[in-house]
Amino acid sequence: MAKQRKFNIAFRIWFLAGEKKFIGKGRVELLERIKRTGSITNAAKGMKMSYRQAWQMVADMNELSGVPLVEKMLGGKGGGGAIVTSAGEKAIDEFHKFEEDVRGYIHEKSKKISL
Amino acid sequence: MAKQRKFNIAFRIWFLAGEKKFIGKGRVELLERIKRTGSITNAAKGMKMSYRQAWQMVADMNELSGVPLVEKMLGGKGGGGAIVTSAGEKAIDEFHKFEEDVRGYIHEKSKKISL
Repeated sequence: MAKQRKFNIAFRIWFLAGEKKFIGKGRVELLERIKRTGSITNAAKGMKMSYRQAWQMVADMNELSGVPLVEKMLGGKGGGGAIVTSAGEKAIDEFHKFEEDVRGYIHEKSKKISL
Repeated sequence: MAKQRKFNIAFRIWFLAGEKKFIGKGRVELLERIKRTGSITNAAKGMKMSYRQAWQMVADMNELSGVPLVEKMLGGKGGGGAIVTSAGEKAIDEFHKFEEDVRGYIHEKSKKISL
């Protein structure tokens, strides 16, 4: 008797602006950490990346978005922090919503795989 | 006037057996190249990987599948080749079918992104 194997499907999605990566799982996590900590430095630390890398990701997103997703605050104690704009919040939400929809679709579809 | 940006969605999927990767884009390409060339060596060369890497991928797939996806042929000129079994052909087809379905779903969904 052949053993019935169960397969699960893993997936990743990326939003592209033209051909360029706009946001994916990692960038969304970065935005969420900036939102939570109010700081690119702290967000970068939490993801074990350098400030330079994190700032480059933010700069890329801001450029591709047209409207900035993150804004740096000048001055204040500790040299100023960063905030996620409403456009940034929207990008986070849209990405998660899209991911959830794809997850649901794939989950249903995966029941029909016979290998 | 705000510029309306168009976003495209890129995606990757993987079939998992339990928690382990069973097949993805790369492994399916390997299977297709083995099928086309009748040889793991040639398939590996076409993908710029070593025979050892390619054989390890085949061994992993065969083990996770239960039924072998690739069988080595002993003897013959050049020391024998390899064939993709009917289970292997089915895995290739199911993967592409799944990918196409997800592509269609994502394409439709992506029209509704407003960022």
